[in-house]
Amino acid sequence: MTDLSGAPSGPYDDDKPHEECGVFGIWNAQDAGAMTALGLHALQHRGQEATGIVTFSVDGPEARFHTHKGLGLVGDVFSDARIMAGLPGTAAVGHNRYATTGATLLRNVQPLYAEFEFGGLAVGHNGNLTNATSLRRALVRRGCIFQSTTDSEVFIHLIAISLYSNVVDRLTDALKQVVGAYSLVVLSQESLIGVRDPLGVRPLILGRIDQPEGQPNAKPAWVLASETCALDIVGAEFVRDIEPGEIVIINDEGVRSIRPFGDRPARFCVFEYIYFARPDSVLDGYGVYEARKRIGVELARENPIEADVIVPVPDSGVPSAMGYSVASGIPFELGIIRNHYVGRTFIEPTDQIRNLGVKLKHSANRAMIAGKRVILVDDSIVRGTTSRKIVEMVRAAGASEVHMRISSPPTTHSCFYGIDTPERGKLLAANHDTEEMAQLIGADSLAFISLDGLYRALGRPEGRDTATPFYCDACFTGEYPISLTDLDENSRARPSLLAEAR
Amino acid sequence: MTDLSGAPSGPYDDDKPHEECGVFGIWNAQDAGAMTALGLHALQHRGQEATGIVTFSVDGPEARFHTHKGLGLVGDVFSDARIMAGLPGTAAVGHNRYATTGATLLRNVQPLYAEFEFGGLAVGHNGNLTNATSLRRALVRRGCIFQSTTDSEVFIHLIAISLYSNVVDRLTDALKQVVGAYSLVVLSQESLIGVRDPLGVRPLILGRIDQPEGQPNAKPAWVLASETCALDIVGAEFVRDIEPGEIVIINDEGVRSIRPFGDRPARFCVFEYIYFARPDSVLDGYGVYEARKRIGVELARENPIEADVIVPVPDSGVPSAMGYSVASGIPFELGIIRNHYVGRTFIEPTDQIRNLGVKLKHSANRAMIAGKRVILVDDSIVRGTTSRKIVEMVRAAGASEVHMRISSPPTTHSCFYGIDTPERGKLLAANHDTEEMAQLIGADSLAFISLDGLYRALGRPEGRDTATPFYCDACFTGEYPISLTDLDENSRARPSLLAEAR
Amino acid sequence: MTDLSGAPSGPYDDDKPHEECGVFGIWNAQDAGAMTALGLHALQHRGQEATGIVTFSVDGPEARFHTHKGLGLVGDVFSDARIMAGLPGTAAVGHNRYATTGATLLRNVQPLYAEFEFGGLAVGHNGNLTNATSLRRALVRRGCIFQSTTDSEVFIHLIAISLYSNVVDRLTDALKQVVGAYSLVVLSQESLIGVRDPLGVRPLILGRIDQPEGQPNAKPAWVLASETCALDIVGAEFVRDIEPGEIVIINDEGVRSIRPFGDRPARFCVFEYIYFARPDSVLDGYGVYEARKRIGVELARENPIEADVIVPVPDSGVPSAMGYSVASGIPFELGIIRNHYVGRTFIEPTDQIRNLGVKLKHSANRAMIAGKRVILVDDSIVRGTTSRKIVEMVRAAGASEVHMRISSPPTTHSCFYGIDTPERGKLLAANHDTEEMAQLIGADSLAFISLDGLYRALGRPEGRDTATPFYCDACFTGEYPISLTDLDENSRARPSLLAEAR
Amino acid sequence: MTDLSGAPSGPYDDDKPHEECGVFGIWNAQDAGAMTALGLHALQHRGQEATGIVTFSVDGPEARFHTHKGLGLVGDVFSDARIMAGLPGTAAVGHNRYATTGATLLRNVQPLYAEFEFGGLAVGHNGNLTNATSLRRALVRRGCIFQSTTDSEVFIHLIAISLYSNVVDRLTDALKQVVGAYSLVVLSQESLIGVRDPLGVRPLILGRIDQPEGQPNAKPAWVLASETCALDIVGAEFVRDIEPGEIVIINDEGVRSIRPFGDRPARFCVFEYIYFARPDSVLDGYGVYEARKRIGVELARENPIEADVIVPVPDSGVPSAMGYSVASGIPFELGIIRNHYVGRTFIEPTDQIRNLGVKLKHSANRAMIAGKRVILVDDSIVRGTTSRKIVEMVRAAGASEVHMRISSPPTTHSCFYGIDTPERGKLLAANHDTEEMAQLIGADSLAFISLDGLYRALGRPEGRDTATPFYCDACFTGEYPISLTDLDENSRARPSLLAEAR
Repeated sequence: MTDLSGAPSGPYDDDKPHEECGVFGIWNAQDAGAMTALGLHALQHRGQEATGIVTFSVDGPEARFHTHKGLGLVGDVFSDARIMAGLPGTAAVGHNRYATTGATLLRNVQPLYAEFEFGGLAVGHNGNLTNATSLRRALVRRGCIFQSTTDSEVFIHLIAISLYSNVVDRLTDALKQVVGAYSLVVLSQESLIGVRDPLGVRPLILGRIDQPEGQPNAKPAWVLASETCALDIVGAEFVRDIEPGEIVIINDEGVRSIRPFGDRPARFCVFEYIYFARPDSVLDGYGVYEARKRIGVELARENPIEADVIVPVPDSGVPSAMGYSVASGIPFELGIIRNHYVGRTFIEPTDQIRNLGVKLKHSANRAMIAGKRVILVDDSIVRGTTSRKIVEMVRAAGASEVHMRISSPPTTHSCFYGIDTPERGKLLAANHDTEEMAQLIGADSLAFISLDGLYRALGRPEGRDTATPFYCDACFTGEYPISLTDLDENSRARPSLLAEAR
Repeated sequence: MTDLSGAPSGPYDDDKPHEECGVFGIWNAQDAGAMTALGLHALQHRGQEATGIVTFSVDGPEARFHTHKGLGLVGDVFSDARIMAGLPGTAAVGHNRYATTGATLLRNVQPLYAEFEFGGLAVGHNGNLTNATSLRRALVRRGCIFQSTTDSEVFIHLIAISLYSNVVDRLTDALKQVVGAYSLVVLSQESLIGVRDPLGVRPLILGRIDQPEGQPNAKPAWVLASETCALDIVGAEFVRDIEPGEIVIINDEGVRSIRPFGDRPARFCVFEYIYFARPDSVLDGYGVYEARKRIGVELARENPIEADVIVPVPDSGVPSAMGYSVASGIPFELGIIRNHYVGRTFIEPTDQIRNLGVKLKHSANRAMIAGKRVILVDDSIVRGTTSRKIVEMVRAAGASEVHMRISSPPTTHSCFYGIDTPERGKLLAANHDTEEMAQLIGADSLAFISLDGLYRALGRPEGRDTATPFYCDACFTGEYPISLTDLDENSRARPSLLAEAR
Repeated sequence: MTDLSGAPSGPYDDDKPHEECGVFGIWNAQDAGAMTALGLHALQHRGQEATGIVTFSVDGPEARFHTHKGLGLVGDVFSDARIMAGLPGTAAVGHNRYATTGATLLRNVQPLYAEFEFGGLAVGHNGNLTNATSLRRALVRRGCIFQSTTDSEVFIHLIAISLYSNVVDRLTDALKQVVGAYSLVVLSQESLIGVRDPLGVRPLILGRIDQPEGQPNAKPAWVLASETCALDIVGAEFVRDIEPGEIVIINDEGVRSIRPFGDRPARFCVFEYIYFARPDSVLDGYGVYEARKRIGVELARENPIEADVIVPVPDSGVPSAMGYSVASGIPFELGIIRNHYVGRTFIEPTDQIRNLGVKLKHSANRAMIAGKRVILVDDSIVRGTTSRKIVEMVRAAGASEVHMRISSPPTTHSCFYGIDTPERGKLLAANHDTEEMAQLIGADSLAFISLDGLYRALGRPEGRDTATPFYCDACFTGEYPISLTDLDENSRARPSLLAEAR
Repeated sequence: MTDLSGAPSGPYDDDKPHEECGVFGIWNAQDAGAMTALGLHALQHRGQEATGIVTFSVDGPEARFHTHKGLGLVGDVFSDARIMAGLPGTAAVGHNRYATTGATLLRNVQPLYAEFEFGGLAVGHNGNLTNATSLRRALVRRGCIFQSTTDSEVFIHLIAISLYSNVVDRLTDALKQVVGAYSLVVLSQESLIGVRDPLGVRPLILGRIDQPEGQPNAKPAWVLASETCALDIVGAEFVRDIEPGEIVIINDEGVRSIRPFGDRPARFCVFEYIYFARPDSVLDGYGVYEARKRIGVELARENPIEADVIVPVPDSGVPSAMGYSVASGIPFELGIIRNHYVGRTFIEPTDQIRNLGVKLKHSANRAMIAGKRVILVDDSIVRGTTSRKIVEMVRAAGASEVHMRISSPPTTHSCFYGIDTPERGKLLAANHDTEEMAQLIGADSLAFISLDGLYRALGRPEGRDTATPFYCDACFTGEYPISLTDLDENSRARPSLLAEAR
């Protein structure tokens, strides 16, 4: 989901693209609320700013939804036993969110919940709608009252005003009106629903927990999650990826599936492999850790250079650097140490301290670097500010040469499908060629993996099929597979719809 | 406003009826946000649980609404200079609220704000709608998404779906569909609007602040407030009461007024005089303090008894007790001391301490009571639990006789027009005659002022005109002047619409 | 106790003298911690800034002290059941404190607790030592480490370094070295001890709770408290005042008493009657409420004037105003309403608002004042700032004349015995005669009760005996009955001893 | 420092030994407070529970100490600009602390500060005194009042009662009475002092910041810190290790050094290399990262086994695993992923969830493990609980064999010199031989590096010199180089001295 309020990006704006959400859902599980909290914990890397869970419980004649949301990490928001006790039931959906602009935007935290004529419904959304602003404008004109500033809320209103009678039909009706990237988990009184947009840009997988033996006839619990790492933590078995354009409806009868959008070739986000997903996740049948190592191998092949040591920029650069080391034969060393104790905030620096160029997150392991020719391996360059600081730090620690190798092609375009990237004007690679970039970040040499190399590393030996590319790689190519409606209508946009400041 | 969620009543449920809100609005004033905070502070007695302010500012081409709401007292919610700095502008509305059921119900705190096609709108509501549940059901069926569990939100949706084009027409359209008691302050980009329901059950007054001299052509600031005490604190001059059924529209052109509901005799809430309003307020041209003293005089005339001392139950019983003392010639003494330092919460008592019958709010001034025949004067008996404790305390302090005199008629019916009273089954006077009540609270005698006596004290020498009573006195008579739609449809109600627990 | 750090006075600096503490102790009571919280709640008027409780429990072989302290009201600091569960035991001492300078001064909150060779000891102190600075200097020189910035801590160190072996001897040894006003409650493993300084400047009383019948041989619980109102709330019976210079030692054998300081005439603080004590307390056998009414009567006799209405400045002026009304025959009306919802903090006013002269605590009851000759009755004038505002407010409400009558003599000297008064230079009466003062506060006339009148009202028909005055009245006379050691040594003081800022 | 209160260990008790503090001091630096916060941030791994800074400022005639302490991470405690503004001055000391037992133990947070006759003094202590209890008992007997429950406070009292006149002599006098391990930073008005105990068990290093060029005659700033990583972050140059038994006194004249304890062979803590120190630190001239890799090499030589993959237990096992991989030729893979988002607290698990064996911190990277013979490399086994879970997790991910290799000898004895280890009875290696341990943790094989192997890896080719071992290795050998006074006097201990619960 995306904040339509044009709010400035948060304190984590540290020159990396940011995933904008993880989702989780579970059906027919004891302690569904706690299971969801565990799943969200495993998906914490997809969003650290806020988190929420909605559960559904039936207690005799009474059926109720229960919600708890908060700003902060899953472990903090759901650490209180009283809070968990307030989330009873055997079905739940949850959401991790990146990016907020302050305490009062608690109303933006998902899952979004609303009461409809047919009962309650909770929706968690990973992705971004590209026609949200125009839909919102039309809905407001019709008399809909928006409570949040997120694109995801249009799902709720489209469902509310649908003339169909049951939840699945209303949801399908709504989906047919939205354009964009979305993986959804939806919880109604009758079912847990999972949806992946027609191109399958964002991931969503299905898992299953068989009930303990000795419980004859016991039905399994079902899990939906953004990544497989969320299955492992709750003891669920991986069943399959939800397919692009598929809607799965899970209830006590089992899992059924509809495909109301017809069939189109998938365009899964290639950046999930490069940076976002957790290394122990398996996406579309391909392990992320292994993929990154192979990218490193390919990178070494394409861009070899003599050096004494391969140093990853932690933490995401590590597997690629290992692959680079294997392919090049140059030793791999942890020449940069990451400090994991960096909190939300830190000292507002005085001029004196700013001049120190203090790096709170990284420090050079001087003994591994001094006097050496160093190859730094990182996953991407966005604005270039971090890369410049890292190179500077490595030089200050005595490196005789600093070569930068990047395990993705140059990021030349913004993402509109659920990744928080700066506008194009701020992307270093959109404005400079590689040589200029090398100079700007202060490296002796700089090289990126090629698009074809990337595809090869991901198991496409023939490289990128320019006619029907297997992945969404718009950030590297500018070929946007889903239309950018709002952007195109930009001149007619009415930002005043979002004018409430706080 | 009322919570439709059926939530249990809050910690202040101390056997007094509770006013359910105060409203304030201001137009064309520097520091409108701070002025509103002051006004709300003066209206704090009308609601202590939560408070909110919405301001509107124009800064060059940019016009924005700004909101801050919080649980707690006005002085606490608005004490931070940074919060006030976030509420710029020359127009504002604010609201004090009684009764919440927890932190997450912040979304119930008013003013409610929404973005419409025509721009933003904030609404603060004092009163209670008697057809809110059925309206809500119809609106949900139409596809409206409710964010709060308050009756007041139906105003917002009715305005949103109205087919009229301007704010006043839409508001009027909405008002024609609601039934109940309401005094509203409404802030749009173009005007500050005040509304009082057709019977004028809840108060709303208009004030004016002339700009300092030496500012030729400066337009005055205008103020709307529940009571005159809120004018005094901001230095505003009382202009007049908003009339029953009147809508006043305030903008830079001045104040204009429409009356879309025709003309019906007013039925102002008589309990405002007895208990709710602040003693220094003037309601409908009649001073509250003076009214209470005259009620005490009348009470003494109707129900004389020999005694040594008149003791008010503080704080609300004081003026009536003074009147009783003047009329009876029996000395008035502060025989009960109130501890004003009682916070939100207190020690959960053990059995041992519960047996002490500890009274955290009141203590007997033993020296004024021991060995004396005491007349206690209080304003009302609701459940009777407090009265019983007070009588017991006064006896324990050595009173030889304890006579209770009440400055209102017996409360036999619940209020549905904005006052939080228990259901009828819990009203002592609904189930017992005066003699039984005296026994139950442990008093040697008990007497209430008569209905006619009450009207006489309020300046109706002929007493209550049974055909067209001047006040709403349904809590004493059961004659409800506004139809109780939801209550009548009770059997068809669908509580599941309000089923989200938290 | 007093803060020796020279910290600026707190937010309550509202032109009234401030009592600086209330103490409470209990022995042999179930739930001693909760009982102490109740007692401190009843003593809340003696200090609202911070509060603490130390209990002592014996659980098998293990004997332990338990402490909880916090900033804020008793009801807030001790509202959590888990906190109370952490204060087990049958003996406890507690303390209410006025004045802190921030969160980090939690270490100044009493009771102070320390581990000695003989075991633990907790001390709560109401009063002020006049040789604390010189004692502290000597103790530091000897190697004592102070943890707080309060004068009270010298008790702890003097006890610690005493060469005597048992607690009572060590305490007596310590008391012989201190000069000043002090009422102490002290809790050791063996006993609860109460101490009143040789002149008995501050109050301390003894109460008793007989065990419920049917418990043969059950020993009573004993209570020490600053005022009798704290006995009422825990169901204790008043036994007697602790005498000046008396040390009472309470243990399971009962109450024994020693008087190590010989016999000197008492000098109880007269201001306790005028302002500090709660009206329902009885001090030295004399009811506070009754005393205040008699002061009002005497004030009317000495300073009569024609007027239409007597208006008290709430809340403390009420009984005196009632007495004045009775004696003068002029009607008593609540012409000023006090807003009891004023929280800790409030809006930082802009210039615009400051010009309004906003009064958050008081408002004029216009109907009772307009066009009338008003006599305002208040208890004291310190700086005069509040009086000026009150007079101004009453005039603005339309009073034709405003006469101020004060139920104490002019406050011409600072208190050094436990009351927070400004330095002499800021006392209005120290620098101006009554006529000037009347002008400065804007009153048509101003009069104070005379010293003799005050003594007469307190049951000394002959007035003040100038040779051996019955009360400490230094604030009116400058006759300080206890030497002001630190003040006299002022030139040699070393403020650096207190230099730690936070 | 150590908590003498016998409090249960904190939430981080996760089967690893815990370092118990980091210290930092700086002299003659602008923004000394902020520089200290940065230094403490770099030392965060040595203690995450609490942190504090004391600065000293001279402003005209006024010289003051300023303190701020808090529970939590450095970045959180010192993130507020107002807090930093309250820590002015050019000299400061700071401290990170492991282990507290609750909010009220804020008084245990260091640096400890006290006012003495000669002025203020702040002390930060890393280490543990082995005669603290007996010293404390003697000091209490003398009349000293302890405010904390830490051993470190005895320094303060010994300094306070010393008969010498200047700070250094008093400190030396105090040090001669204490027994144990201690690295101290001390700040007085005249100097910054660093102390390392006679055996130099805990680290302490000296750094220097030259003033920017163009400032002729500008004196350098001096830094003391536990590890060199704290120099890097503030831009300081490493000068040298403080020597065992050395006291360095830093003031505007420069650095001078005294050695009042004579000369004894050093016994630096070997565990600093194995686990505690940050990999980019250099201790005693030996890089920690390099040392760990060489330990891994030695471990592979001593304990080879056939396998498919080397997997480190993150994060501390990584360098040793890399060394093991290099020496064995078996590939190194990140087969276990660490979740760095684990907060303070987490869901209290229900039975259902407990049975899942949920691992919040670690997850298996299934693709790297399934079907493989895995060698896990970890740094130590304390209780064995974590090792058992890790082995179980790796087996569940499909490993065909799991071999555990530990880069330290078996931990058979508790540490009394500043490391938080469980009592001996809970140390797995104290009660079981290696084979039993392998069975208990479920590994197919288990091996530890030998003592001689460890010494060899640390640059002692001859292995451990049993007569004069170069390191303190008591946790592996039970040879305690500093006498354990309190432990030996255990039978006479009076725990009641520490009886205040909270």
